[in-house]
Amino acid sequence: MSRRSPASGHRPEDGSQDSRLATRDAAAKPPYHMPFDEFRRHGHEVVDWVADYLESVGDRPITPDVKPGDIRALLPESAPERPEPFEDVMRDLDEIIMPGITHWQSPGWFGFFPANSSPPSILGELVSAGLSTQGMMWSTSPAATELESVVADWLVDLLGLPETWKTTGPGGGVIQMSASDSTHLAFVIAREQVEGPAESKVLYASNQSHSSIEKGAKIAGFKQVRLIGIDDEYALDADELRRTIVDDLAAGLKPTTVVSNIGTTGTTAVDPVRSIGEIAREYGLWHHVDAAYAGTAMICEEFRHHQDGLELADSYTFNPHKWMFTNFDCNLFYVADRKPLIDTMSILPPYLRDEASESGQVINYRDWHIPLGRRFRALKLWFVIRSYGAEGIRYHVREHHRLATDLAARVERHSSLELIAPTPFGLVSFRHVDGDEATNALAAAINESGWAHVSPSTIEDRRFVRVSIGQTYTTAEHVDRLWDLIAAHA
Amino acid sequence: MSRRSPASGHRPEDGSQDSRLATRDAAAKPPYHMPFDEFRRHGHEVVDWVADYLESVGDRPITPDVKPGDIRALLPESAPERPEPFEDVMRDLDEIIMPGITHWQSPGWFGFFPANSSPPSILGELVSAGLSTQGMMWSTSPAATELESVVADWLVDLLGLPETWKTTGPGGGVIQMSASDSTHLAFVIAREQVEGPAESKVLYASNQSHSSIEKGAKIAGFKQVRLIGIDDEYALDADELRRTIVDDLAAGLKPTTVVSNIGTTGTTAVDPVRSIGEIAREYGLWHHVDAAYAGTAMICEEFRHHQDGLELADSYTFNPHKWMFTNFDCNLFYVADRKPLIDTMSILPPYLRDEASESGQVINYRDWHIPLGRRFRALKLWFVIRSYGAEGIRYHVREHHRLATDLAARVERHSSLELIAPTPFGLVSFRHVDGDEATNALAAAINESGWAHVSPSTIEDRRFVRVSIGQTYTTAEHVDRLWDLIAAHA
Repeated sequence: MSRRSPASGHRPEDGSQDSRLATRDAAAKPPYHMPFDEFRRHGHEVVDWVADYLESVGDRPITPDVKPGDIRALLPESAPERPEPFEDVMRDLDEIIMPGITHWQSPGWFGFFPANSSPPSILGELVSAGLSTQGMMWSTSPAATELESVVADWLVDLLGLPETWKTTGPGGGVIQMSASDSTHLAFVIAREQVEGPAESKVLYASNQSHSSIEKGAKIAGFKQVRLIGIDDEYALDADELRRTIVDDLAAGLKPTTVVSNIGTTGTTAVDPVRSIGEIAREYGLWHHVDAAYAGTAMICEEFRHHQDGLELADSYTFNPHKWMFTNFDCNLFYVADRKPLIDTMSILPPYLRDEASESGQVINYRDWHIPLGRRFRALKLWFVIRSYGAEGIRYHVREHHRLATDLAARVERHSSLELIAPTPFGLVSFRHVDGDEATNALAAAINESGWAHVSPSTIEDRRFVRVSIGQTYTTAEHVDRLWDLIAAHA
Repeated sequence: MSRRSPASGHRPEDGSQDSRLATRDAAAKPPYHMPFDEFRRHGHEVVDWVADYLESVGDRPITPDVKPGDIRALLPESAPERPEPFEDVMRDLDEIIMPGITHWQSPGWFGFFPANSSPPSILGELVSAGLSTQGMMWSTSPAATELESVVADWLVDLLGLPETWKTTGPGGGVIQMSASDSTHLAFVIAREQVEGPAESKVLYASNQSHSSIEKGAKIAGFKQVRLIGIDDEYALDADELRRTIVDDLAAGLKPTTVVSNIGTTGTTAVDPVRSIGEIAREYGLWHHVDAAYAGTAMICEEFRHHQDGLELADSYTFNPHKWMFTNFDCNLFYVADRKPLIDTMSILPPYLRDEASESGQVINYRDWHIPLGRRFRALKLWFVIRSYGAEGIRYHVREHHRLATDLAARVERHSSLELIAPTPFGLVSFRHVDGDEATNALAAAINESGWAHVSPSTIEDRRFVRVSIGQTYTTAEHVDRLWDLIAAHA
C-alpha cells in the first residue's frame, strides 16, 4: 500500500499548546465528554476538512491503491483503553482511512449510478445528528413525522406521481434506507395479500431487474421467481409476462406480484409500466415499480412519458440519494393505499390499532417498514429541495441528460465503438466493436487514468462500458475529458 | 400551537450585506450549488447551532406543545420552485421545526431507552456525509469495509463476546440500521436452515420480548410464534420452552428459532441464555440473542454474568446507538458462522460467488443484510470509541448503573412506591401502591414538569413507571431532581 501524504490535513488551531493540552486532559478524565468549546472548534475544523475535500476531490485518484487487508494492517488490533485526543483521530482519518477511500463524490465519477451529496444535504445531516431525535411515532417527535410527510407529498407533485399517493389521500410516502428495503417490503405486503402456502406464490420481473428484486424475493420467502424476457431495448416483454402468468395459473400456482422497472441498472431500460399495470389488475397481482435511479428525472416533464401508467401501481420506490443531491441514505417508498402496508407491518392486535394512523390524522412511521427507530432523514431532503429549488434540480437533470446525449452521439460517430442501448436518462452504454477484450481494455484504460471511473458490465453475455453521468459536480468539461480518454484508447 | 421564539438563532455573519446578497445570487443561478466558501460559513454556523442546542437542551421542555397537523400547517403545500437562501432554511428550522421536536438528548430524558449522541459521534457523522462513499463491496471503498470489520472485532473484545465472532474467525459483525433489522435477518436465516413449508416452522421467544420479535417473525413469514411464559423476574421460563418445543414436535411442527433477551424492553429482564442455548442445540434451533440496549453494559466485566452462555448463540445484536454515545443509526449484528448468512443473502449463483468473501480475505457487506448501498457508519463508532476510550464508556455505564441503583433504593424506601423488577442495568421500574390511576398520575406529573421524561408502561395488566437512566449527559444532579419530583407527587 502506498502511503499518501494527506491532501487536506487537520489544521492546528491558534492558541497556545498549553491551553490545548489542558482541554485534552479535561476530556481524558471523567466524565470524558468532549467539552462544548472543543466541539465547536473541532466542528469548524471538520467543516473545513469536508470543504477542502469537496474542493479537491476531483484531483484525487478515484480508486485507492490498496490490497485487501492494507487498511486493517494499519489499525490497532484492540480498541484504546484510554481516551485519545481528537487531533489523533483526524490524523488517522487522513493517514490511514483516506488512502483507502473510493471517491464517489469526484466529478469524474461515472461508475454504477451516482450516490450524490451536496452542501445543503451535508448540513441537514449534521443538524439531524445534532438533534438525534427519534421519529418512530408521531408522538416521539412530531415535527420529524410531519416534515417527512410534507416532503414526501411535495415529491408527488414535483415528480408527477399520482395525487392519491399523498399522505393526505389513501396512500403515502415514507423514507427508508435503500430501494432494496422498499422492494423487499413491497414483496412482503404482496405475499400477505394472497392466501395459500408461500411455495405457491409467484413473483415476476424482467431479466434486467436489479439484484435487489431476486434478493428481496428470496428474503420474503418466494420460491418461484420468473425472470421475463425482454425486447431489443432491454424492456420487459409484456406478452411473455401474460403468457407466463396464464401458464402458472394453469399449473395451480398463485401469481402474486410483478415489478416494473423505470430505468434498469444495466442500461436504464424502461419497462411498459401501463401494460404491466393492466396485466397486474387483470390477474390481481401487486404491482411494484422500481425507479430507484430514474425517479429523480421525472422532476422534468419531458421525461414523464416514461412513467405513463403509474396510477396502476400499488407501490413505487426511488432514491433521492442517487441523483437528487441528498446523501445516502434517503430512499422514498410510496404506496397507493397505506392500509395493506400498515396491516402487514403493525404487530398491534386489532383492538389496539391506532385509528388515527389509518385515518391520516397521525402517522406512526414505525408501522411503515421493518425498523422501529428512525433518524430524522427528511431534514436533509428538505434542506436540498429548498436550497436548489425545483428549478435547480431540473437544471442538473437536464444538463446531465444533455451531456449523456452528446456523449452517446460521439460514441455513435466513432468507428470503433457502438452503442448497445438508448440513453433515456444519464447513462451511456457502449462497447468496442472488436469485442469483449477490447471493451474490457477500454474500461480499464479509463479507470487507470485515476480521475474518471466507469463500471464495465455484461449484458446478454457480452461486455459493455457503462458511463453514468450524474455526479453533483460533473460538467461538460469532465465529459469532454472522458471523451478524450475514450477516443485515445478506442 | 404555541410559537416559541428560537432559543438559539441563526447568527448573521460578519461582512457586508451586499457581499452576502452577491453569493446568494450565485447560488440562485446555474449551477445552483452552494459555493464552497458559503458552505464553510454555513457549516461553522450549523456547528455552533448544534453546540448551542446541546448546551441548552436541558433547559428546553422535553416534549413539544403541538397537536397533530400543527407543524404541517406552517409548511407550504408545495416545494419551492426557486432556490431559497440558506438563512431562510435555518430560520424555518428554528421557528417551525424546533417547536415540534422531542428532545431525546436532554439530560432529563428517562424515556424508552436512551438514543444517545455525543460530540465525536456527530463529527464522525459529518465526515461520513462529506465523503458519501459507498461500502457495499470491499472494492467500492476498501477502507469503509475494513474499518467496519476492525471496529466490529474491537467490540468482541470490549464486550467479552465469543472470540469466534470476529471477522478473522468463522463469524463476524456488520453494522445495520436497527435491532429490528438484525432480528428479522436472523429469523430469515433461521427459516432457510429448516426444510419444509413456512407454515410448519415455529419461532419461540419470551412474552416480554420486544415488538420487533413478533414483527420480524411476521415479515419473515412465520405463522407460528410461541410467546413463552416468564418467571417472577420476567425472564423466560426454560422449562416451559422445552415443553412447548416437545409438544410442537409431537404435533409434526418444526421448531426453527428461539430468542434470548438480555435486557427486555419492559423491565430489562435477562433470559437464561445458557439454558436456552442448550435447548436450541439439543433440538437444532437457531438461537438469536437480543441485547439491543444492555449489550453496551458488557464493556464492564461485572455485568458479563448476564450474558453467560453466549457461545451457544448463532446470532446476536446490540445497539451502540442506544447507550454507547453513537447517534442513530448504528446497530451491530453478529453471527457465529457467516456462511449461512451469506448463503441466505447473496443472490449470486454459486459459480459467481466470491470465494474471497467466504474465506475472510474480503468482505462484501452487501451480502450481510437487505440493503445494497451502505453509509460509512463505522466512522462515527470509531470516533466515539477512540474519543471516550474503553475507560470513558465504562465510566458512564457504571455511573448510570449506580444512579439507577440509588434511585431504586429510594423507591424501595418510599411507602407509596414499590419496585416491580430488579435493576440489573440502568432501568428502574416501579409503581404507586395505590394502583394504576395513581401510577399514571405520577408519570404524568413527571412528564408535565417539562424537563424530565419517563415512559409509563404496562406489565401483566398493571401500569408502572419506567425510568431509564442512560442519557449521555445525565448525572446525579438530574436524578436527584427527578427524585424530588417523584417524591413530591407520590
